[in-house]
Amino acid sequence: MSPWEDFGREGGLFRRLRADAAADWQAYTWHEFCRRLSDGSLPLVAFQDFLIQDYLFLIQFARAKALAVFKAESLEAMREKTASISAILAETTMHLTYCAEWGIPEAKVRATPESAETVSYTRYVIDRGLAGDILDLEVALAPCTVGYGEVALRILADPARKLQGNPYQSWIEAYGSDSYQKLAREAAARIDALGESHGGHARFPMLTATFGEAARLEQRFWQQGLDAAAS
Amino acid sequence: MSPWEDFGREGGLFRRLRADAAADWQAYTWHEFCRRLSDGSLPLVAFQDFLIQDYLFLIQFARAKALAVFKAESLEAMREKTASISAILAETTMHLTYCAEWGIPEAKVRATPESAETVSYTRYVIDRGLAGDILDLEVALAPCTVGYGEVALRILADPARKLQGNPYQSWIEAYGSDSYQKLAREAAARIDALGESHGGHARFPMLTATFGEAARLEQRFWQQGLDAAAS
Amino acid sequence: MSPWEDFGREGGLFRRLRADAAADWQAYTWHEFCRRLSDGSLPLVAFQDFLIQDYLFLIQFARAKALAVFKAESLEAMREKTASISAILAETTMHLTYCAEWGIPEAKVRATPESAETVSYTRYVIDRGLAGDILDLEVALAPCTVGYGEVALRILADPARKLQGNPYQSWIEAYGSDSYQKLAREAAARIDALGESHGGHARFPMLTATFGEAARLEQRFWQQGLDAAAS
Amino acid sequence: MSPWEDFGREGGLFRRLRADAAADWQAYTWHEFCRRLSDGSLPLVAFQDFLIQDYLFLIQFARAKALAVFKAESLEAMREKTASISAILAETTMHLTYCAEWGIPEAKVRATPESAETVSYTRYVIDRGLAGDILDLEVALAPCTVGYGEVALRILADPARKLQGNPYQSWIEAYGSDSYQKLAREAAARIDALGESHGGHARFPMLTATFGEAARLEQRFWQQGLDAAAS
Repeated sequence: MSPWEDFGREGGLFRRLRADAAADWQAYTWHEFCRRLSDGSLPLVAFQDFLIQDYLFLIQFARAKALAVFKAESLEAMREKTASISAILAETTMHLTYCAEWGIPEAKVRATPESAETVSYTRYVIDRGLAGDILDLEVALAPCTVGYGEVALRILADPARKLQGNPYQSWIEAYGSDSYQKLAREAAARIDALGESHGGHARFPMLTATFGEAARLEQRFWQQGLDAAAS
Repeated sequence: MSPWEDFGREGGLFRRLRADAAADWQAYTWHEFCRRLSDGSLPLVAFQDFLIQDYLFLIQFARAKALAVFKAESLEAMREKTASISAILAETTMHLTYCAEWGIPEAKVRATPESAETVSYTRYVIDRGLAGDILDLEVALAPCTVGYGEVALRILADPARKLQGNPYQSWIEAYGSDSYQKLAREAAARIDALGESHGGHARFPMLTATFGEAARLEQRFWQQGLDAAAS
Repeated sequence: MSPWEDFGREGGLFRRLRADAAADWQAYTWHEFCRRLSDGSLPLVAFQDFLIQDYLFLIQFARAKALAVFKAESLEAMREKTASISAILAETTMHLTYCAEWGIPEAKVRATPESAETVSYTRYVIDRGLAGDILDLEVALAPCTVGYGEVALRILADPARKLQGNPYQSWIEAYGSDSYQKLAREAAARIDALGESHGGHARFPMLTATFGEAARLEQRFWQQGLDAAAS
Repeated sequence: MSPWEDFGREGGLFRRLRADAAADWQAYTWHEFCRRLSDGSLPLVAFQDFLIQDYLFLIQFARAKALAVFKAESLEAMREKTASISAILAETTMHLTYCAEWGIPEAKVRATPESAETVSYTRYVIDRGLAGDILDLEVALAPCTVGYGEVALRILADPARKLQGNPYQSWIEAYGSDSYQKLAREAAARIDALGESHGGHARFPMLTATFGEAARLEQRFWQQGLDAAAS
């Protein structure tokens, strides 16, 4: 078993969702953008475009987590999700510093409008969260949180990975780190747990549609960076 | 089996919810207000107060159904629920006529603010609908739709029912009618069907909490009429 | 003044929004897709792709209108918006017939997933509607309703329009019809009225951001058809 | 000018709302419950009932703040409101300790269902927040935050206040403290600022209806404690 097949537990909802969306999941987590992060060939402008949209993404991601607080069913869950919002909002500030290191002035990041790709995934998540319950919301969010964990593990195991002088090393390390991997594992475990408590298997047709659409929208998110470099 | 135990199907989610909330359900569907509708002893002022709040209730009920359209998972479900909104909005107009027949001028109905009891049940339903999915919403709505059907059947079978000159005969007939009973049966059947497709049995602890709270808030809705008469 | 500059009233919120988003509005309402509908040169596959996504769009549009019912502030507004949902749901059925006339089997329409472009505009509208009030929602919806009215008027006045044997004549007639133009005028008038009652001028910075983003997302919606034909 | 007339600024939206709802505001902020906190005559059981429901209230209040994060229009506002959620969730823990000091075991607090009064105000706030925008939500919340500040100031200035051996001294001090008064002043200032940026004066009819209803529902919240003692 590859290390990235280890998220979630055997027989749990997360693995079932991942398996059912196999083609879309593969196309997302091993997208050309990811492979070129790995071999270091990704054009700088593609990465810069991605970083700016990722900043705009984080703001919407924090809003989705706020919705999760609203929908949480225990004080403990409310506390955990509130801590997530705080962490994401702190990350937006760090992200501006990171963008600056990549030559993108803060003013430019702030002035860029959200792309259709950023809007589509983030608002899809928010809509699933409002139309459905906490499980629908978490299933729409999981491709992001768990998926980035898988992307990092795939890069770390990639024979074509550029080890010396890979310009994207800091990004790879951030998502390959123990702390991020822990977050990703927890997100998959949350899906498994909600799958049990919220009838995930009975609801599988709807949930797999959500998960698959989210994976497709994440592919588009990577693709926009490549398109920016090509244009 | 009493006729009012016939809503929903054996082993279905509706009957399980009703059984689990037995004491609250009984206190709601055979509230003193209902018994006095049946024996004709309900003070006029209690009924008038109820009618006004019921008008305000209908408006919020239509909003809850709009939320159900937003959350519906098929075009067919969207159509059915849109037809429900139209029917409820038409009912508000008829309700004004009915109020006028009971000596309540339209201007008074429109000028009365919602009571805490009206606010509590209606907004509880809306909140459950926003926090949860379509099943949570329907479970919060069911005590109203199915419950009024049960109230009417209990009155129709009540040995103490005043048959001659019962001032509330028109109300009893409206909810005892085939057309209303069909609505109530359909609502219970919807809960059963959603129970299957949306993991209702796995989610029972949360759903029974919702159903029970809704039944308690409905008791308070009846009680406000009696309180109005007592004050 | 061109006929399409006649939506909304002088000094009203709609015209102010349209003027402030002039470049994006022009790029949307006179997109290459529209110009090629006019001169008849649009590839069939582009139009077919558009028709399928337009069907999926309508379903989400009905959901956005359901949200408008939930947010409406009078029974009259609730009735109008409920009638809109019914009309849109009826249109989905007619749309399937129209697709069939264009050689797209119903099964194909139903089996096609929403594109990122369809998701982005529709969920953006829904999110603005949930984050904001009825004015925010209507401002996010207006580029669709009023914009299609403007597109049709621009085509009708286009010197390059192909009059004889234009394959897209039925589409042009549908949106150029008195009945559709009336809908578009009413939508602009609603924005003007809500602008007065809901502080539209004080809220202009936020509203113009919404309107502009919606116009950009509509451009992308047209573009996806051209991209489908190019690929 | 009494010190409690000092919330908000002259000509600002908060003072206008307070003035327009004068009778309901007075009935809420100087309710018999408050007067008896002041003179120390409030029955212990009334205060205990209040404390339990106040705990349940806090949980819903945190959910309403989560909705405010979702609706916030800047990162700064998102951060402030997220800090509010954290503070409220921390308060729930302290509240359990406070309840224990008043002889209410934690298990009893946790096992008590929300009363209709608690449901009505909290869900009304949440519904206004979802139906409207951030201003509608803040206007629905203000009677709580600012109102408790006013209650404390009224008690502190009350000639009938029992100074020696008042059993409710700790409650009076908590809400009369500089830190709470600062919170209350900030909430009023937020209403004033949103009133400017979000067209509050144009929207006054709707906003005053929300503020007045919230004040009436807060009266009911106090009253439930007295009713509990009377029964």
